[in-house]
Amino acid sequence: MNQDYIKADNWSIIEEGFDKARVKSSESLFSIGNGAMGQRANFEEAYTGKTFQGSYIAGVYYPDKTRVGWWKNGYPEYFAKVLNAPNWIGIQVFLDGEELDLANCSKISNFRRELNMKEGWYKRSFTVTLKNGLEVKAEILRFLSLDFDELGAISYTIQVLNSDGEITFIPYLDSGITNEDSNWDDKFWNSTHVSISENRAFIEAHTMKTKFETCTYMQSYLEYNGKQFTGEKYMDTDTLTSFRFKQHVKAGEKVSLIKFGGYTVDRNHKSGELISAANSVLDKATKLGFSGLLEQQKIAWSHIWEMSDIVVEGDVKAQQGIRFNIFQLNQTYLGTDSRLNIGPKGFTGEKYGGSTYWDTEAYCLPFYMATKDDTVARKLLKYRYNHLDKAIENAKKLGFTNGAALYPMVTMNGEECHNEWEITFEEIHRNGAIAFAIYNYYRYTGDYSYIPEMGLEVLIGISRFWHQRVNFSEEKGKYVMLGVTGPNEYENNVNNNWYTNYLAKWCINYTLEQLGKVKDGYSDDYGRIIGKTKLTNRECEQWKEVADGLYFPFSEKHEVYLQQDGFLDKEMIKVADLPKSERPINQKWSWDRILRSPYIKQADVLQGFYLFEDNFTKEELERHFDFYEPFTVHESSLSPCVHSIQAAKLGRMEQAYTFYLRTSRLDLDDYNKEVEEGLHITSMAGTWMSIVEGFGGMRVLDDKLSFIPQIPTQWKSYSFKVNFRNRIIKVVVSSKETSFELTGAKEMSIRVGGERVTLIPGETVTI
Amino acid sequence: MNQDYIKADNWSIIEEGFDKARVKSSESLFSIGNGAMGQRANFEEAYTGKTFQGSYIAGVYYPDKTRVGWWKNGYPEYFAKVLNAPNWIGIQVFLDGEELDLANCSKISNFRRELNMKEGWYKRSFTVTLKNGLEVKAEILRFLSLDFDELGAISYTIQVLNSDGEITFIPYLDSGITNEDSNWDDKFWNSTHVSISENRAFIEAHTMKTKFETCTYMQSYLEYNGKQFTGEKYMDTDTLTSFRFKQHVKAGEKVSLIKFGGYTVDRNHKSGELISAANSVLDKATKLGFSGLLEQQKIAWSHIWEMSDIVVEGDVKAQQGIRFNIFQLNQTYLGTDSRLNIGPKGFTGEKYGGSTYWDTEAYCLPFYMATKDDTVARKLLKYRYNHLDKAIENAKKLGFTNGAALYPMVTMNGEECHNEWEITFEEIHRNGAIAFAIYNYYRYTGDYSYIPEMGLEVLIGISRFWHQRVNFSEEKGKYVMLGVTGPNEYENNVNNNWYTNYLAKWCINYTLEQLGKVKDGYSDDYGRIIGKTKLTNRECEQWKEVADGLYFPFSEKHEVYLQQDGFLDKEMIKVADLPKSERPINQKWSWDRILRSPYIKQADVLQGFYLFEDNFTKEELERHFDFYEPFTVHESSLSPCVHSIQAAKLGRMEQAYTFYLRTSRLDLDDYNKEVEEGLHITSMAGTWMSIVEGFGGMRVLDDKLSFIPQIPTQWKSYSFKVNFRNRIIKVVVSSKETSFELTGAKEMSIRVGGERVTLIPGETVTI
Repeated sequence: MNQDYIKADNWSIIEEGFDKARVKSSESLFSIGNGAMGQRANFEEAYTGKTFQGSYIAGVYYPDKTRVGWWKNGYPEYFAKVLNAPNWIGIQVFLDGEELDLANCSKISNFRRELNMKEGWYKRSFTVTLKNGLEVKAEILRFLSLDFDELGAISYTIQVLNSDGEITFIPYLDSGITNEDSNWDDKFWNSTHVSISENRAFIEAHTMKTKFETCTYMQSYLEYNGKQFTGEKYMDTDTLTSFRFKQHVKAGEKVSLIKFGGYTVDRNHKSGELISAANSVLDKATKLGFSGLLEQQKIAWSHIWEMSDIVVEGDVKAQQGIRFNIFQLNQTYLGTDSRLNIGPKGFTGEKYGGSTYWDTEAYCLPFYMATKDDTVARKLLKYRYNHLDKAIENAKKLGFTNGAALYPMVTMNGEECHNEWEITFEEIHRNGAIAFAIYNYYRYTGDYSYIPEMGLEVLIGISRFWHQRVNFSEEKGKYVMLGVTGPNEYENNVNNNWYTNYLAKWCINYTLEQLGKVKDGYSDDYGRIIGKTKLTNRECEQWKEVADGLYFPFSEKHEVYLQQDGFLDKEMIKVADLPKSERPINQKWSWDRILRSPYIKQADVLQGFYLFEDNFTKEELERHFDFYEPFTVHESSLSPCVHSIQAAKLGRMEQAYTFYLRTSRLDLDDYNKEVEEGLHITSMAGTWMSIVEGFGGMRVLDDKLSFIPQIPTQWKSYSFKVNFRNRIIKVVVSSKETSFELTGAKEMSIRVGGERVTLIPGETVTI
Repeated sequence: MNQDYIKADNWSIIEEGFDKARVKSSESLFSIGNGAMGQRANFEEAYTGKTFQGSYIAGVYYPDKTRVGWWKNGYPEYFAKVLNAPNWIGIQVFLDGEELDLANCSKISNFRRELNMKEGWYKRSFTVTLKNGLEVKAEILRFLSLDFDELGAISYTIQVLNSDGEITFIPYLDSGITNEDSNWDDKFWNSTHVSISENRAFIEAHTMKTKFETCTYMQSYLEYNGKQFTGEKYMDTDTLTSFRFKQHVKAGEKVSLIKFGGYTVDRNHKSGELISAANSVLDKATKLGFSGLLEQQKIAWSHIWEMSDIVVEGDVKAQQGIRFNIFQLNQTYLGTDSRLNIGPKGFTGEKYGGSTYWDTEAYCLPFYMATKDDTVARKLLKYRYNHLDKAIENAKKLGFTNGAALYPMVTMNGEECHNEWEITFEEIHRNGAIAFAIYNYYRYTGDYSYIPEMGLEVLIGISRFWHQRVNFSEEKGKYVMLGVTGPNEYENNVNNNWYTNYLAKWCINYTLEQLGKVKDGYSDDYGRIIGKTKLTNRECEQWKEVADGLYFPFSEKHEVYLQQDGFLDKEMIKVADLPKSERPINQKWSWDRILRSPYIKQADVLQGFYLFEDNFTKEELERHFDFYEPFTVHESSLSPCVHSIQAAKLGRMEQAYTFYLRTSRLDLDDYNKEVEEGLHITSMAGTWMSIVEGFGGMRVLDDKLSFIPQIPTQWKSYSFKVNFRNRIIKVVVSSKETSFELTGAKEMSIRVGGERVTLIPGETVTI
C-alpha cells in the first residue's frame, strides 16, 4: 500500500481514486470532531469491505477490567477504554432494490474525499455502476457543528445517470456496536429505550458500569424537485431504529437525503431530559436547515483560524501538514469544559485507554495558551486541581502518606488506569510535568491567581510525593531516586533518571518559593491551604534537604549528565550505525534487546534541557544534544519536536527542519505505518511548537515575549499569531525580515534577537 | 479460620470434624496422585458449599492466549494452563429420594478425613442426619493406582442407621467442567463422543487447540449382602453419562458402590484406541477387585517408602511434615516418562501455568537422584535435551543467533509461556540451573555418558547465550550483563546480578572443560556435536574472554559481593526492624515499594554460595550469610531450605531448624494462607535437602559421599537412605552418634566429618 496518496493542498486533505486497502487509513485521516464528539470517516451507506467503525463521545468511557498475567499490588482495577458510541450516521441506500456498497459494485470512478479544514466539513463523491446496470453519482457532505456541539449533519445526494430509478434511503440509529479493541467481546452499552416521534428517532442507552446516559438521535427528510418529503417508520429492534424514504427519480435528477443527528449526554443535561434536549437541538437545526448550519460552521471555523492559523509560503505540503495539526487539535479540544481533556488519539480511534496523559501539560498547553484566551489553559489546569484528591488516593495505594500526590499516567476521572508496573508505578516524572504547567501558565499568561486559588495545593501534594519517593544512600552520601522510568520508555526501573531527579528538585524549590509568595501576598489563601494540608515548617525544611542533597549522575569523561546510573555500561553504537533493516527497533527487536540498548525513544535528558533551558548554557545544550541525539530513535511521536526546537536554537536549521518534517506530516504520510488505528493528536501540538518556539524562537523572558526568528531555506515565509496576555501579535518571518503586528489598545515591548522592540497597535514593525 | 486443624500423626494426614470454611484447604491437603494423574480431595457426592473442583491429567494442558495490557515483542503467544479434566469420581447419592449434600444436612457428626501416606489411599467418613430424618453413616475410600496409572478406584459405603431405606447411587462422568482460573469463561474441552457398553461408560473429549485426546471412563457395581449388582443406564447428555443403582436396605446394613474410573490418553495409546485401552484397564481392575487393587497399592507404596522415607524420632509433627513432602513429590512425579515433569502445584491446583520451572533442576533433581535410581534423574535431564531446539528458537525470537539457547521460564512442551517481560526476558539464570544440573547429575551418579550423548549440546547452546547476552562496558573495562532478574524476583531489570554473572562464567568454563573431555574420550560424539553445532575454536576463545572478563559487583566496605549494581543505594533497614503488620510485604506493599526496598524474596547471592560452595571459604559464606540473611523475607517457598542448609553448615543449628520448620510444614500449617489454591510441590524437595544436605551434611566430594551429621535438639534421631551410584546407604543420626549401613555387594568408602570411613555391606558402622 502506498500511503502517500493524499493530494497536496493548502486548505484541504484530498484523496482521489478508490482503493480498498486505503479505507481504514482514510477513515482516520478524514475524521471530524467538534470537541464534544467526533467520528472516523466511515461511510454512511453499507460497506462490506474492511473498515474500522468509530464514533466517540467526549468523556464517555468504559472501565474495562484490568487483565494482566500476574497482578501486582497497587495496580488499578480498571483500564479506561475509549468507547465506540452508537452510530447515528448510517444511511442504507438502495437503487432499484440493489444496495449500494462500494465493496460490491461493478465499477467505481471519480471517487474523491475532501476534508475542508478551512470550513470544517467533509465531502465524499463517487460514480458507480451497480450490478443491476444503474450508473449512480453520489455526493455526501458531513460536518459536526461547532455551534451546536451535540449536532451533526449529513447531506446525501444521489443521481442515477443512465436511467430512471427508484431510490430508497434508510437512515438509521444503531446502538448494537462493539469496540474493535474488545478482545473479550464484552458488551459496553445497554440500550434502554428506542422511540420514534414524527420524523425523529431516539435510542437511549447507558454504558455498563460507568452508567453514562446518552441519547442518540436523528431526524431526516428527503429533498427532490425542490420539495421536502418525510419518511415512514421502518425496522425497529432493541438496538436499532430506522425510517424509509422511497422516491422514483428521473435519470440525471438529484435526490438528497438530509439527516441531522448526534448525541445528548447526562454530563450536559438532567438524565431524564436527554430526549427533550435532543428535540431542542433538532428544532434549531430544522429552523436553520442544512445550508444555514453549514454557513454557521464556516463562520465558526474562520474564527478559530483567525487566531490559530500558521501560514507557510513556498511549501504546500508543509502548509497542509501544519494546518492538519492545528485543525485536529481544535477538533479534539476547544477548551469549553474543564471536565474534558485531550486524548492521544482524539476522536479518531480507540488505542490508548483514558484521555489524559502528561502530553496535555508538556505539549498541548503551550498551543492552547497561545491560540486561545487564557481561560482555556486555566481549564486544563483546573482539570488536574479537580483530580488532586484522587492523586492523593493513588499515592496512598502505593504506600505514600501525608497527602503526597501522584497523578495518574493515564486517566479519565482522576483515577489511574494504566497497568504496567514500569509505567504506572515508575513513570512518575508526569507529576513534574503537572507542576511545570502551573509555572508555565503563570509565566505565559501572567495570571498568578491560579496559584493561591488552586495551584499551590497541587504543588504541595507533588512535593510531598518527591520527598517521600527518594531515599538517602549511605553509599553515595546523597538522596537517590530508585526504580523509575523516564520519558524514554525504552529504559525501565532505572536508578537516578537525571530528568526525573531534576524535575523533583525543581518542583520542591518552586513549591517553597510559591509558599513564600502566597504567604506574603495572599494571606487568606495561605491560611486556608496550610489549614487544609497541615503543612509544617519542619516538612518544608526536609523538602529542602532533599532538593539540596539530590544525586545527579554525571560523566566527567563526556562532561554530560547521564540519563541514569550505569548508562555508559551499554554498548554505545550510534543509531546511524544500525542497519536500516533493524528499525524501527520497537517493531524489529525484542523488548529485552531494546531495554539493554542505549537507544532513546524520546527526549529524556534533552526534555529537561527543553523545559529548563535557562538553567543551562548554550554550550551545555550543544554538548548534551550532541551526546544524546545520536542515540535517539524518535519512536514516540512526541520526540522530534523537542529535538527540532533545540537544533533551531543551536542554529542547525537543516537538522531542525528534518525533525520538523517527521512531526508535521507524521499521520498524513503515515511514517509509523499505523494511521489506520487513528491519528496522533497530542503530538500535533509539538508541530506547532516546532514552528513557533523552534523556527520563531519564541520564549517568555522576564515577563516579555522574545523571538529569535529563523526560517527553513525550503520556505519563502511563514506567519503565526499568538495571544500573549490578551494581546494578539502576528509574526511574519521571511528569509529577509520579520515583521510584527500588534492588535489591541496599548503598546507593548518585546525582544527580537535579544534587542528590545516596541510594538504599537496597528503598526507593522519590520526587522 | 484456624488452619492448624490437621492432627499430628506419623503416617497419616487426619482431619476431624466438619467445617465448611476448611473444605477448599482440605481439598488441597488430601489430594491424591500417581504421577500420571491426580485430583483434589473433592467429594464424590453433591456438595453445594464452596469447593474448588480439580482433576488433572499429566501433560494435558491448554495454550491460553496470552493477554496483557501492552504487548512486547518476544512475548510468547500463549500461557500454558493446567487444565481441569473431566470428572470421573462423581457419585450422586439419594436416600429415600433426598440427595446427600453435606452443605444441606440437619446434622453432621464424626466427619473424618485420612490421607494414609504409607499405603497411598484417602478415606472420608461421616454420619449425617438428613432433612427427611434418616441417619446415615458413610465411609468412602479412594485411591489412584500406582500399578495401573490410568486407574482410580472408589468404594462408597452407606448405612442407614435409624430405619430401612432406599438408597440410590448415580455414578457419573462429566466433561462439562471449567477451570477456576478461567477469567474469560473459555471452553477448554470439546466432548466428541459419549458411549456406554454394558456397565461401563466412556466420554471421549479432546482439548481445544492442543487436541490432546482423552477418554474418561468408569465402571461401577453395587455390593449388598455379599452380592454384586449392576446398574441401569441413566441420564446422558453431550458431556455427561451416568448409571443408576437402586437398593432397598435394612437399617444398619451396609451397601457399597464400587467405582473404577480414570483416563486413557493419546500420549500412551493410539488415538482411535482409547476406549479399548480403557476396557483393558477395567478388565484388569475387575479381575483384581477393589480389595485386590488396594493390596497392590499398599505394596507399591511400601517400595517407594523403603527407599525414600525419612524417619524422625521425638517429633511427630516434623515426622508428619517430612513424610507429607516425600509423599507429595512421589504422587507428582515418579520418573517413568521423560515427557513429563514436576509442576509447582503438581495435581493439586491450577495456579502457575506450565509444568516446568527451574525448580526441577535446582530443587527436585537432588531428591530424585538420591531416592530413585539414576534413570529417573536422567529422564529429567533428557526432558531438557528434547527441548533444546525450542530453546534455540526461543532465544532467536529475542534476537540471539548462532544456536544460542534460552530455556523457557515456564513450559509444557519446550516453548516459553510466561508473559512478564521482567521474567520471560530477564530471569535468565534459569539457563544456568539447567547447565548446573548436568554437572550435578554427573557428580552424583558418576554417569558421564549423558554429557557426550546429549548434555554437551545443551551446554554449548547455553554458553552461546551467555556469550551473546553480555556486552563490553567501556566505562568499566569489563563485560557486563545488563537488564536481568535474579532468583530474588523482588528486583527486576537490574545490572550485573552477581548470581547470574557467576553462573554465566561457570557455565562457559564448564562447557569448555567438557568440550575437552569429550574430544579426548568420545571422539565420535565430539565429531557429531561439532558437525551439528558448527562450533569453532574462535568462538570458544571469545567465550573464554567473556568468562575471564566478567564484572562482579563487590563492596570493599562490607567485603561482600553485591546482589547487583547499586544495591547499597537502598535504604538498608533489616527485616527484623520492619513492623510485623507490614509483612508479608508481597501482600502489604505496592510492587513499587517492594522493588525499591532491599528485601530479598529468596536466596540470590546465597543461592550462588549454595551451588558453588566449594569455591568459597566458610568465612566468606558466613560474611555473606550475615549480610544477606537479615534482608531476606523468604516469601518464596523455595527460600528457607537454602538458608537452612547454610545455617547448618555454619553450625547454627537452632537457626537451621527454624528455617527447616518454615519449609517442612508450609502447606500443612498454611504459612502463606493460600493452601486452598493447591500445594507447593517443588519446594517440598527443599525440605528433603534441608535434612539430608543441611542436618546430615551430605555432599559429594572427590567422587565420594561425605557427611557432617548434626541433629536439631528437638529431635531424638532421624534416618534416611540415599542411593549413591547404585549403592544404598542408610544413615541414622542421633545426638550421640551416627550409624551407616550399606546395602550391596562391594565395600565403599565415604567421609564423615572429614574422616575416611569404610562401609562393608551388611555391617553397621557407628561413629
